[in-house]
Amino acid sequence: MEITKRTIGININPDGGVDALIWAPKAEKVSLRICEGKIDLPMQKQDYGYWTLQTDQLKAGDLYRIVLDDEKFLPDPASLSQPKGVHEASQVIDLSFNWTDEHWRNWHLNEYIIYELHTGTFTPEGTFEGIESKLDYLKSLGINTIEIMPVAQFPGERNWGYDGVFPFAVQSSYGGTKALQQLVNAAHHKGIAVVLDVVYNHLGPEGNYFGEYGPFFTDKYNTPWGNAINFDDAWCDAVRQYYIENALMWFRDFHIDALRLDAVHAIKDFSPVHILAEIKQHVDQLMKETGREHHLIVECDLNDTRYINPLEKAGYGMDAQWVDEFHHALRVTAGGETTGYYEDFNGIEHLAKAYNDAYVYDGQYSEHRHKKFGVKATDHPDSQFIVFSQNHDQVGNRMLGERSSQLFSFEMQKLIAAATLTAPYIPMLFMGEEWSEPNPFLYFVSHTDAELAEAVRKGRKAEFAAFHTEGEAPDPMDEATFTQSKLQWQLQEQGEHAVMLAYYKKLIGLRKYLHVLTNPNRQQSKATADKAKQVLTLQRWFQGEYLVALMNFSNQVQQVTMPPTDKKWIKQLDSADPEWNGPTKADDEFQSEA
Amino acid sequence: MEITKRTIGININPDGGVDALIWAPKAEKVSLRICEGKIDLPMQKQDYGYWTLQTDQLKAGDLYRIVLDDEKFLPDPASLSQPKGVHEASQVIDLSFNWTDEHWRNWHLNEYIIYELHTGTFTPEGTFEGIESKLDYLKSLGINTIEIMPVAQFPGERNWGYDGVFPFAVQSSYGGTKALQQLVNAAHHKGIAVVLDVVYNHLGPEGNYFGEYGPFFTDKYNTPWGNAINFDDAWCDAVRQYYIENALMWFRDFHIDALRLDAVHAIKDFSPVHILAEIKQHVDQLMKETGREHHLIVECDLNDTRYINPLEKAGYGMDAQWVDEFHHALRVTAGGETTGYYEDFNGIEHLAKAYNDAYVYDGQYSEHRHKKFGVKATDHPDSQFIVFSQNHDQVGNRMLGERSSQLFSFEMQKLIAAATLTAPYIPMLFMGEEWSEPNPFLYFVSHTDAELAEAVRKGRKAEFAAFHTEGEAPDPMDEATFTQSKLQWQLQEQGEHAVMLAYYKKLIGLRKYLHVLTNPNRQQSKATADKAKQVLTLQRWFQGEYLVALMNFSNQVQQVTMPPTDKKWIKQLDSADPEWNGPTKADDEFQSEA
Repeated sequence: MEITKRTIGININPDGGVDALIWAPKAEKVSLRICEGKIDLPMQKQDYGYWTLQTDQLKAGDLYRIVLDDEKFLPDPASLSQPKGVHEASQVIDLSFNWTDEHWRNWHLNEYIIYELHTGTFTPEGTFEGIESKLDYLKSLGINTIEIMPVAQFPGERNWGYDGVFPFAVQSSYGGTKALQQLVNAAHHKGIAVVLDVVYNHLGPEGNYFGEYGPFFTDKYNTPWGNAINFDDAWCDAVRQYYIENALMWFRDFHIDALRLDAVHAIKDFSPVHILAEIKQHVDQLMKETGREHHLIVECDLNDTRYINPLEKAGYGMDAQWVDEFHHALRVTAGGETTGYYEDFNGIEHLAKAYNDAYVYDGQYSEHRHKKFGVKATDHPDSQFIVFSQNHDQVGNRMLGERSSQLFSFEMQKLIAAATLTAPYIPMLFMGEEWSEPNPFLYFVSHTDAELAEAVRKGRKAEFAAFHTEGEAPDPMDEATFTQSKLQWQLQEQGEHAVMLAYYKKLIGLRKYLHVLTNPNRQQSKATADKAKQVLTLQRWFQGEYLVALMNFSNQVQQVTMPPTDKKWIKQLDSADPEWNGPTKADDEFQSEA
Repeated sequence: MEITKRTIGININPDGGVDALIWAPKAEKVSLRICEGKIDLPMQKQDYGYWTLQTDQLKAGDLYRIVLDDEKFLPDPASLSQPKGVHEASQVIDLSFNWTDEHWRNWHLNEYIIYELHTGTFTPEGTFEGIESKLDYLKSLGINTIEIMPVAQFPGERNWGYDGVFPFAVQSSYGGTKALQQLVNAAHHKGIAVVLDVVYNHLGPEGNYFGEYGPFFTDKYNTPWGNAINFDDAWCDAVRQYYIENALMWFRDFHIDALRLDAVHAIKDFSPVHILAEIKQHVDQLMKETGREHHLIVECDLNDTRYINPLEKAGYGMDAQWVDEFHHALRVTAGGETTGYYEDFNGIEHLAKAYNDAYVYDGQYSEHRHKKFGVKATDHPDSQFIVFSQNHDQVGNRMLGERSSQLFSFEMQKLIAAATLTAPYIPMLFMGEEWSEPNPFLYFVSHTDAELAEAVRKGRKAEFAAFHTEGEAPDPMDEATFTQSKLQWQLQEQGEHAVMLAYYKKLIGLRKYLHVLTNPNRQQSKATADKAKQVLTLQRWFQGEYLVALMNFSNQVQQVTMPPTDKKWIKQLDSADPEWNGPTKADDEFQSEA
């Protein structure tokens, strides 16, 4: 497979024309239609179901369609741009960009402090340009990495991104290809890495023309979204190439620093080489070629170290994974719900286990899953685990989309922020949590298919059975649902919001500049839970530095015996200090009892 | 999990009563019905969906049923005996047996010369006792291992065994538990190992009451037999335990030497520890406990070394696998069909690759599968691969069930036998091939469900589309179809059949007593194909011994240049010798050209 350039779809070639490569194994005839003038150029059949064409009749900016058997006029599955939406013509795009980030080097994963954001609701503009205008703010906050929720073209203008149907096309309403390249370039100038969330486990329900081209899906596996993407059945090679090339494109042509692969447990692949491992092999090649470093991060609900084991140990070679269990244990400890998947978490003891072992379930029986779950992740470096106190899913999958700001007291919000940022793992914030944004992050879509829109409404309601017994679900199709989910930037400077923001800056500063916090390292970290007091003590040490994070999850003042030492303890941060609108403060210096 | 005894179902306990353990997670009430007197004993609910009872009201030989919610009177899924068939009551069985095989030690896998047989058609009696009566013959033939097609209770009295629905119950019409134990004991006295074919990828369509008890199946995966057995979905632990205990039972309570696990590619399991690996872990424990050695052999259509990699290399730890590709390449080379899955095989060059690399497809594009297929098996010992020139599937899945005897000339039959027995892999014969049995091995069933029987007839016809364009498919339900498939033992002593038998004995003798053939070793083996002459030269060497097998697949006498050596060549076997009814013979001794 070609590493240095994109080969599928329509690509500008050095002679000024385009090379076209379309996969349509069941078609008898394939043509490339130039929309201007309705010119159909017949393509040549090649091996393995591919069709090719070289032509100088198409140039960047032109609209085109793929014509199957003279009767289907479809957008290109590998389209780089869908300026008129998911059902309409594709557009030729020149991926070249005048990059000026040659001095940028990606952070090592263990340095990442990630800020997850959704382009549409992060700023009033809802565009990549909007994000760019906030880079200075983000730098001042202290984070060094932004993670952008999926940007593949989706139906309409409002979507979380997981309904994307053109994995190579950057959402036009966000600003498209050039605007994303511009954002990444600008971020790199500010010292900010960019993680892109990509969806390789399904395609959205509207504008999905893949099945017309060939067996892009297989009925061997059933997923929450219907038939699975065909990663191991007949004709799978082209599908695999499609996603490998997709990963390569973001790194190579957009200078994306890391991919966050959505719900990889839903990728069904029994091939000898799993598609994730094959992606990793190719990304390794690309890195060798370019000298740039890229990370592969997965969302995975399996507690299965195979995903993060290196290739040479028969793993899939992913660099890191999200750990939802840390979140669940933390929320239960903080006094959140105990229903649904939270039923598996007993609170502070499981939180201590999350700090110590990464996976809470590493072989025990899970009541919620009705089976033994997980394996031990003991030997895995801590930079392989990404933790958070909230994220788009944990907020947005609630019926009312409440952030922690609406669920927990101001004191508790500060505590769970510190619990995350002092963890021996990679911390991730969700946009707005740093000023306790009160607006919800709701589930919103803008499907143009009325039946589908109705199905989404219904499906949404069914999903809440375990969590909510009352209240009305906002209509995902209503534009107001989207608008309500936007961040309120003016709050940053107001009252408790301003205090929270200052507190976050302080906290992130500690994370970044205290060596003992900078190096995520479970081998030099130990959490113990006092269940009666609801106090968690997290000890961390590194090269002579020693840190204790005392987390009091009870609603009472607690006396805690510090670990013995003949040195003096210096308080770095006290979330209960009146400085942070807290009720009381502890001494600034103190000593362990003899 | 208990290693030293069976825990699920009904088991005789040391106090003379029975321990009952039934998995029925969705039932509100479970009782054990003693058929004699219709006594229902309520069972006690335990964790994880299990129900238990200890009672002295049941003893070996008694019939019982499991009663779910006072309304379903079902056989026990872990039944050890179904004396009245798959729909009727289960029977309590005492698994203890007066073993006298304490001096037996299982052969190492590389010593195996396997003889596959089907209990019902192997002898006129169609029973285990029938097999026992042939042990002396089998010993005289030279094989040291029999492989018995599946014996789990199936509907009616005629079945290959893959429609079994009680994996713990030995088919009653074959003689049941004791007769199988008796056969194994007797085989061990003759120095013959016993491999049992077991089916862990599906259950038969008739008499399958598993779904009534709980989620034994999952709709996450679709298999050729419908929903997959639930190895990784909610409630899977009990299903996994069920099959682990099944494997342990055959080894522990039946002294079976090896299991042949049917079509493991159809076992769908994304758990961190694959069910095959978990079976291996438990069998390892059992072997430690008993000091006996057992092998796990899989039928696998994936060319994926993960199955045969050891556990410590993240493999599933299976000891060996069938290699259908050797068969396919051999048959095409021998002038057999080139349609269906044979289309992937080009004849003699692929046969040479099969000798050299085990897998023919180890990464290349397969036209038949429409995808790249397989990985390299270069580093795997040759005792991990089992080869054959025919087997129950390759014979019986033909519409007319023709053995090689009906498809190839007498000369070619001798050649493909030698091709198999000189291979650097484990050879396997199919019952009767050693005397060129002319009877077919047809597909036969004896379903009692009329609709199902009709569906089987239809399905059977559809399957042949790629292979046969004319001729009538024998009715699988017709008892005559079964009877026609029986071996004709009287032929052994007649004409060409007697010659073939003598030839096989000679061939097996060479395999057993020539050191260079005894040690399967691809590192000391090299096959080269002369496509023009249709001659394959297989060289093997071992500790100073040097052997060349010249295989002339053309219908002409060929001159072959022997590898250079200053020693004299001694002819060990000449299949074309008039001694074996051949047309001509080569010199008994000759020298390589200078």
